[in-house]
Amino acid sequence: MELSQASGLRQFLPRRPVDSHKGTFGHLFVLAGSVGKTGAAALCGEAALRMGAGLVTVGVPASLNPILEVKLTEAMTLPLTEVQGVQALGKRALEEIAADWPGKTALAVGPGLGRHPETVELVRQLVRRSTLPVVVDADGLNALAHDVDSIREAAAPVILTPHPGEMSRLLGATTKDIQADRLGAARELAERSQAIVVLKGAQTIVASPMGKVMINTTGNPALAQGGAGDVLTGMIGGLLAQKVDPFNAACLAIYLHGLTADVQAAWQGDCGLLASELLDQIPHVIKEFASGALP
Amino acid sequence: MELSQASGLRQFLPRRPVDSHKGTFGHLFVLAGSVGKTGAAALCGEAALRMGAGLVTVGVPASLNPILEVKLTEAMTLPLTEVQGVQALGKRALEEIAADWPGKTALAVGPGLGRHPETVELVRQLVRRSTLPVVVDADGLNALAHDVDSIREAAAPVILTPHPGEMSRLLGATTKDIQADRLGAARELAERSQAIVVLKGAQTIVASPMGKVMINTTGNPALAQGGAGDVLTGMIGGLLAQKVDPFNAACLAIYLHGLTADVQAAWQGDCGLLASELLDQIPHVIKEFASGALP
Amino acid sequence: MELSQASGLRQFLPRRPVDSHKGTFGHLFVLAGSVGKTGAAALCGEAALRMGAGLVTVGVPASLNPILEVKLTEAMTLPLTEVQGVQALGKRALEEIAADWPGKTALAVGPGLGRHPETVELVRQLVRRSTLPVVVDADGLNALAHDVDSIREAAAPVILTPHPGEMSRLLGATTKDIQADRLGAARELAERSQAIVVLKGAQTIVASPMGKVMINTTGNPALAQGGAGDVLTGMIGGLLAQKVDPFNAACLAIYLHGLTADVQAAWQGDCGLLASELLDQIPHVIKEFASGALP
Amino acid sequence: MELSQASGLRQFLPRRPVDSHKGTFGHLFVLAGSVGKTGAAALCGEAALRMGAGLVTVGVPASLNPILEVKLTEAMTLPLTEVQGVQALGKRALEEIAADWPGKTALAVGPGLGRHPETVELVRQLVRRSTLPVVVDADGLNALAHDVDSIREAAAPVILTPHPGEMSRLLGATTKDIQADRLGAARELAERSQAIVVLKGAQTIVASPMGKVMINTTGNPALAQGGAGDVLTGMIGGLLAQKVDPFNAACLAIYLHGLTADVQAAWQGDCGLLASELLDQIPHVIKEFASGALP
Repeated sequence: MELSQASGLRQFLPRRPVDSHKGTFGHLFVLAGSVGKTGAAALCGEAALRMGAGLVTVGVPASLNPILEVKLTEAMTLPLTEVQGVQALGKRALEEIAADWPGKTALAVGPGLGRHPETVELVRQLVRRSTLPVVVDADGLNALAHDVDSIREAAAPVILTPHPGEMSRLLGATTKDIQADRLGAARELAERSQAIVVLKGAQTIVASPMGKVMINTTGNPALAQGGAGDVLTGMIGGLLAQKVDPFNAACLAIYLHGLTADVQAAWQGDCGLLASELLDQIPHVIKEFASGALP
Repeated sequence: MELSQASGLRQFLPRRPVDSHKGTFGHLFVLAGSVGKTGAAALCGEAALRMGAGLVTVGVPASLNPILEVKLTEAMTLPLTEVQGVQALGKRALEEIAADWPGKTALAVGPGLGRHPETVELVRQLVRRSTLPVVVDADGLNALAHDVDSIREAAAPVILTPHPGEMSRLLGATTKDIQADRLGAARELAERSQAIVVLKGAQTIVASPMGKVMINTTGNPALAQGGAGDVLTGMIGGLLAQKVDPFNAACLAIYLHGLTADVQAAWQGDCGLLASELLDQIPHVIKEFASGALP
Repeated sequence: MELSQASGLRQFLPRRPVDSHKGTFGHLFVLAGSVGKTGAAALCGEAALRMGAGLVTVGVPASLNPILEVKLTEAMTLPLTEVQGVQALGKRALEEIAADWPGKTALAVGPGLGRHPETVELVRQLVRRSTLPVVVDADGLNALAHDVDSIREAAAPVILTPHPGEMSRLLGATTKDIQADRLGAARELAERSQAIVVLKGAQTIVASPMGKVMINTTGNPALAQGGAGDVLTGMIGGLLAQKVDPFNAACLAIYLHGLTADVQAAWQGDCGLLASELLDQIPHVIKEFASGALP
Repeated sequence: MELSQASGLRQFLPRRPVDSHKGTFGHLFVLAGSVGKTGAAALCGEAALRMGAGLVTVGVPASLNPILEVKLTEAMTLPLTEVQGVQALGKRALEEIAADWPGKTALAVGPGLGRHPETVELVRQLVRRSTLPVVVDADGLNALAHDVDSIREAAAPVILTPHPGEMSRLLGATTKDIQADRLGAARELAERSQAIVVLKGAQTIVASPMGKVMINTTGNPALAQGGAGDVLTGMIGGLLAQKVDPFNAACLAIYLHGLTADVQAAWQGDCGLLASELLDQIPHVIKEFASGALP
């Protein structure tokens, strides 16, 4: 078990060689959004670009596509079949995603998806069948709550990023139990699911199925607001798209996510920061982190 | 009767403990918006986040939901049944709000609602039945104008935030009369309604049903522009969501609202400031206020 | 004939007394926008707020209303009857505007209206019947091009703000003729129309029907880009709404519009400035101008 | 063959004379956008304004027009006939573009168009028949991939801006072959198509049909992200609209595009910059470049 240390994480930042082009930095597919929760999808997609992903496509319920097109400019969108009258993703979206698969290098699933049974089914199928590394968050995790053991059937590496409430649904325990033994809970879920587990909260824990554990040292209460988690998911996804090893991607994204919040809080305080403000700060933080000017 | 003093108000700022998460800071439900007035709903919702609320959901007429989804990113939206062809909230929204109630910790009602009879009826029912503390502003106040005595039947604490014109409709007096005895008017309404009354204007007055009164010392003519009131409503709502005592929430929000305008005006002058610019300044002002760097 | 001088114009800036409220600073109604040109409507409406107007309502073709609601936050919108299938304002909007008239204090007409015959007819009727001072720009001017003499029948003061091309259509002369004697052209139109005439271009000229003339000294080629004129219209309208004398409103707005561009250009150069960037600079310029820090 | 040198390029920056107006700086027509890719259209249109074009109109599939109206404020939009149910431009748009032709001074074609057969046909016809200089990028290039020889039939100067992948489709070679002899490839395409060719990548090459070649020295991996190319297309188009000689326009735009990225990267690093951030920086860079403060 180790505390996150900048000296160890810095090496996992993807190199940006002089002769690179957008293809060099991968293409993340984000599956996110439902009525009332399009902001989560936008934050996740843009966070991946901020982490350096070359291209991002955000797959959303078709009727919400115009909203996402307005919210995003550099990320592309893909309208997908939705449950009729519900503005949440439907099962048939699976084939459409498969058709859009070529060229993608990683997958992020969950922000703002909602909990419609068809969406739940879609998430399960997608996580199981994905040939690309995938990070699962938020309603994506809720979709897997009664199905943890099956995650180990996934064809590619999976990262789960629950907060304690989602963790309690995944493990069938109370939130109180989780918080009483955060390390144990993360390890248990990692073992059962054979996925990398990111248990969020103060001192976020990263646990691998092989027993590797890291405890994060960055972050502050500015992150205790809606949207901060969606940014983290996009950051992890952005690193996966660049083919960073999943455990390292999780550790590095969480460290930088907290560090960004720390930089913002030093300037603006830890109350009332919007998640979209975190996004704008990420490149600066990466620059200072890469050079060693930030720890 | 006391003048607002930073030294007294500072203690009411919610603490942000290291192990907090978004649930720690509550969930505000905002009921706002009608055709042509979606900006009011957006300003109110975002102001609550700026005051540190963990989550915000803005309930709006269904056909206006895409507009609000675009305008807001960190706040969620809830499309509600509207009056057919009118793009204003209908009576049947009451049940939908009730279904969304679990997990909410406070309510803000009024910005940009319009004055359709069904909307008026909805507001009255909601204020009366709310089990959560509620702040009522703008068209929400107009909805209660002929019904002041019934506010005392409300199940939970109520804050009313009229400007003199709205106050005149609430008390059945002329604006001139209100302004001639602002303190008397605020006290009268507080007593009749058993609500906390915020009478806006230069030197905003806060009066409690128990006879407590505060006169605010911050603010300037930069606030004399459309949208500033919507921001105040969201700030009060954001504090209520964090379970700040209603009278203290009103006093603190009004003080910080004016202080933010003062900071902005020192930089940009007191002409032509947009309410959305106030929003961006709030975290800085809270930080400086909390540390004592601002009075 | 006089050159504009800051020393003379400064006095026309509306005072902002401590006990003011949004009603103190008037309510501008903007009639603007058609398909493809909603940006003009948004720039105009926001410019009025930047000049200190208390409230702004932007009346637009009904099907474009959602676009304007997204683009504007502090200004309200009013969807109006449009020509079927055309997304431009129809004649029947006149009654709807009349119904919304109470409380308005000035009118701005023209930005992005397009040239549909029904829209042309609407503008003519509105300018003739308006009981409020009105500034007419862009397609509003084109609507009046064959009808200049009738402007003198207008019930309230009118300000016309043509660029040389629009001026040529108003006077039935060539642009070359206009530019060869800009002063003469402005005076001629002012006399024929009994309106205040703002002939735009380098050294914008303001001419009154009574023979008063001012030549502006501010501005630079940064203003030679789409949108700059819409901002000027809104600035004039914002001053009219605050009951500034129309000739003084025109002179002051033009001076500040150019001064804002000069301040921006000193920082960013005079190439590629967006009109929306002018908007953000206006409050600073007013502050510095009011204090004498800017000439 | 020459390396780009600021000393040589500076003279091609359009003058901005004191008595200029928006007509002085031309009017660019941009043909761009399809479902999921409206951001490309917006970036391209705004980049042209940032380069000083007086007016910009962005022609888009009709059903996507509201999205573009929201995204753009200073640029106008033109909704065009689309393929039914596909949200991509249809053949019949050609007549509508022709009807809107008067007053335009240059054409940019390609960003985000998609690859529908009707759109492909539209692009081919438009490039062949255009009486204005035209820059073709992205899916516009893909539309010409099997038709390179016919480009020489174009009535007006054409600039092609392929990245190596698009180049391989244009020349029927592998990307590897292209990269092994970038100079040879650019020259070959320039000769076969009689167009100016901009082969993007590290050290972008500009080749003219007459054998002139320039190799660019600016730029960095911050440009290796979706959207950067759309900005370049708009910058070239903006210069064409101002009647800069096409070869010089290509060289100058590419130089400034890379220089802007260099300035941004010095401040924010070369990871996670959004293309829209490049846009905001362009005026500053032009100012410093024009004065010689930047090389």
